[in-house]
Amino acid sequence: MTKGRDLPPLRLLPGEERRIESGHAWVFSNEVDTTKTPLGDFAPGSMASVVSSRDRFLGYAYVNPQVLICARILGRNAAEPPGRALLEQRLRRALALRERLYARPYYRLVYGESDGLPGLVLDRYGDLVVGQSGTAGIDAMADDIVAAVRAVIGAKQFVWKNDSGARELEQLPETVTADSGAVPDETGVEENGLSFRAPLAAGQKTGWFYDQTGNRAMLRRHVKGARVLDVCSYVGGWGISAAENGARDVLCVDASATALGYVERAATARSLPVRTLRGDAFDALEDLAAAGERYDVVVLDPPAFIKRRKQAAKGEAAYRRLNQLGLQLVADDGLLVSCSCSYHLEPQSLLDALQKAARNTGRFVQVIETGGQAPDHPVHPAIPETRYLKAFFCRVTQE
Amino acid sequence: MTKGRDLPPLRLLPGEERRIESGHAWVFSNEVDTTKTPLGDFAPGSMASVVSSRDRFLGYAYVNPQVLICARILGRNAAEPPGRALLEQRLRRALALRERLYARPYYRLVYGESDGLPGLVLDRYGDLVVGQSGTAGIDAMADDIVAAVRAVIGAKQFVWKNDSGARELEQLPETVTADSGAVPDETGVEENGLSFRAPLAAGQKTGWFYDQTGNRAMLRRHVKGARVLDVCSYVGGWGISAAENGARDVLCVDASATALGYVERAATARSLPVRTLRGDAFDALEDLAAAGERYDVVVLDPPAFIKRRKQAAKGEAAYRRLNQLGLQLVADDGLLVSCSCSYHLEPQSLLDALQKAARNTGRFVQVIETGGQAPDHPVHPAIPETRYLKAFFCRVTQE
Repeated sequence: MTKGRDLPPLRLLPGEERRIESGHAWVFSNEVDTTKTPLGDFAPGSMASVVSSRDRFLGYAYVNPQVLICARILGRNAAEPPGRALLEQRLRRALALRERLYARPYYRLVYGESDGLPGLVLDRYGDLVVGQSGTAGIDAMADDIVAAVRAVIGAKQFVWKNDSGARELEQLPETVTADSGAVPDETGVEENGLSFRAPLAAGQKTGWFYDQTGNRAMLRRHVKGARVLDVCSYVGGWGISAAENGARDVLCVDASATALGYVERAATARSLPVRTLRGDAFDALEDLAAAGERYDVVVLDPPAFIKRRKQAAKGEAAYRRLNQLGLQLVADDGLLVSCSCSYHLEPQSLLDALQKAARNTGRFVQVIETGGQAPDHPVHPAIPETRYLKAFFCRVTQE
Repeated sequence: MTKGRDLPPLRLLPGEERRIESGHAWVFSNEVDTTKTPLGDFAPGSMASVVSSRDRFLGYAYVNPQVLICARILGRNAAEPPGRALLEQRLRRALALRERLYARPYYRLVYGESDGLPGLVLDRYGDLVVGQSGTAGIDAMADDIVAAVRAVIGAKQFVWKNDSGARELEQLPETVTADSGAVPDETGVEENGLSFRAPLAAGQKTGWFYDQTGNRAMLRRHVKGARVLDVCSYVGGWGISAAENGARDVLCVDASATALGYVERAATARSLPVRTLRGDAFDALEDLAAAGERYDVVVLDPPAFIKRRKQAAKGEAAYRRLNQLGLQLVADDGLLVSCSCSYHLEPQSLLDALQKAARNTGRFVQVIETGGQAPDHPVHPAIPETRYLKAFFCRVTQE
C-alpha cells in the first residue's frame, strides 16, 4: 500500500465532517464534494485521505464508489497510513482484549468498526482463523490481513468465508477459500467450558455464533431439571449447553438437517437427553402448542427477520408472531429467552411484542436479564450499528 | 380491606384504558372521567375498581387524588381484590424468583410495579426486611404488608425506611420505624460471596444497592493486579469487592464520612489495600488528574443527576463532565465502568458522553459489557420506568 501522504484526497461537503469527527467510521456518497473529488476517480477498494471542506485531515479510508457507504475510516492518525503496520497494531489491540477476557482461543478476534477495521470479521477457532470480508476495501487488503494475522497470532490456517449478503451490495463475488490446503468441513469450538463441532463452508456465518456466548452462560442457572425448547437451534449451542448443565429434556428445532445432524452427534456422543425436530419454526411451534406441550425454558434465537430497514414492518410482525407462539409454550413460572439479532429492531419493539403476547395469553412477564453481544463483539459508542443483539430473559407466570 | 365488588369505581375517559390494558400500572389524573367519578371522592390511599368509559373492569387500584399518578393498578383479576391474600400471592411469586436466583437471602424481594406491587420496595437482609413506601396507597396497606411478609418469609424484623423523595410528591411524611425494637444502626449484607456491613437509618436507600450486584460480579474479572478508582463509592461495594478479587490498590472517593467509615473498617478488618478520599467527586477527580494519577479501572457510580425530567439538560451536562474527568484518569488499555441510575438519561446519551470524552482526549472506547439492573430488579416490559440502571464497561486505548 502507498504511504499516507501519497493517498488521493476524498473531500467532504461543508459540515459533513461532523459525524466522522464524532467518531463514526462511515462516509455516505452524498456527503462527498464530487465536484472537487469525483468518486469515479477511485477504484473499488482503493485508499484515500478523507478531508473536510476546509482541507482538514479527518482520517484514512478505503473507498468504494459504487455503494452508499462510499468510504470507511481505517485510522485517524496522519502518521499511521493504512498498511501492514496499522493492521498489526489493530490486531494486537484486538488480541489483547480477547486474551484478557477468554481462557481459551475461541472468540471473535476482530469485530469490524468496533476494532478499528471496518468491514472485517475474524473469528478464531484455536489455530484456525475464519475471516469474512464485507467490502471491496477489505478484499483489497486481504493478503496483508492474512499475513498480519499469521504474524500476530501465529494461526496455522486462514479461511476466507466470503459468502455474506453484505458482499452483494458491494458487487463482490461469494467465495470460500483457504490460504493453505482445502477448506475444512468443520471445526472444533470451545465455549463456556464445553466443546462443540461446527460446520464451516456449510455453516451459518463463520460456523459458530460467538455473540451468544455470554447469554448462553447466563442460561445455565435456569435449566437444572428443566424441559427446554431450543427454537432455531442451529448446531445446538443453547440446547446442548442446557443439557450439559442439567436440563431434563431438550428439544432442538431447526430447518437445517445439517445443523440438526451436529446436535444429534453431540447428544449421542455425550448421552444427553436432547431430541431434534426438523421444520419451520412457526409450524413447529404451532404443532407443539396444539399437542399441549409445555416447557420450563423456551429459547427463541431466530435469524434476523429484518436485514434492511425497509423490511422492518414485516419483520416486526414475524417477531410478534414468533414470541406469541413461544410464550404460549412456556409452563407457569417458566422462562422465555427471546433474542433478536436484527439491528433494525429496537429493544423496546421486542419488549412490546413480548408484552402483547403476555396480555393475549393472560401471563405476567418480568424481564430478569437483558443480554447483549458477548464482549468479543464490542460496541463502538459512536456507531449504533455495532450494537445489534438483544436477549431478554423473561420469567413468565400467570397474571 | 373491603371486598372487590364493594370498591367504588374510578372511571376513565373514552380511549384512556389503552395503556392500562397494554399492561402499564399507572392512571394519570387527566385520564379520569371526573364528572362521573370525582377524584375528590377518594381519600389518599383508598381502593377503587378502575373501569373503562364503557364500564369494563380493568383492575383494582389504590388512589391518591392529590398527585399526577392518581391511581396504580394492584391486580387485574376481578376475583382477587386487594388484601392480605393478594399481598401474600405477590410475595410468594416474588420470593420464588429470588430463591431460584440467589443462594443466600440477600436481595431486593419486591421491586414495585415489576412485582405487581406498585410503590413498594422490600429489600431483604437475611432475617431483616427493610421496606420503602412511595405512595399513600402503600402506606394504607402497611400493616397488611408487614403481616404478609412475616407470614410468607418469616422475617424476624421489619423496618419501614420511608424517607425517599417520592413521598414528598405524595404529601407523605418521612419516617423510619421498626415493627419491633429499635431501628438497627446497621445490617450485614452478603453479595457475590462477600460479606459487608451497611448503615440503615443513616444509609442511602435501604442501606445497600442490590441493583449493582450483577455489575459488580462482572467487574471481578477485570481487577486482578489493577489500580482501581471507585468514584461515589458509598460503603465500598465496588472497591472492597475489587480488592477482594485481587486489585493491587483501591481508592474510594465519596462525600460521606459515614460511608467511608464503612469502607475503612472493612479494609482494616480484611487487610485490604483500600484507601479513602472524602470529597466532592468532581473536585476529587480534578485533583487526581492534576496530580498525574492514572488507574487501570475507574468506576463512576454517581447518584442520579436527573431525578425529574425537567432536570435533564443540567443532569446530562453533569454526566458529560463526570465521564470526561473519569476517562482522563484511565491508563492506556484500562477500563472505565460508567453507570447511571437516572431513568431519564437515555443509554445512548451516556454513550454519547463517553464518546465525546474519548474524542476530546484522543482515546478509543469499546463497550465490552452493557450491564443493567440485577435480576431482583426485574423490568416490566410495559413499564419503561422500571428500567433505570445503565452500566457500560468501556475498554479505553489510545486512538
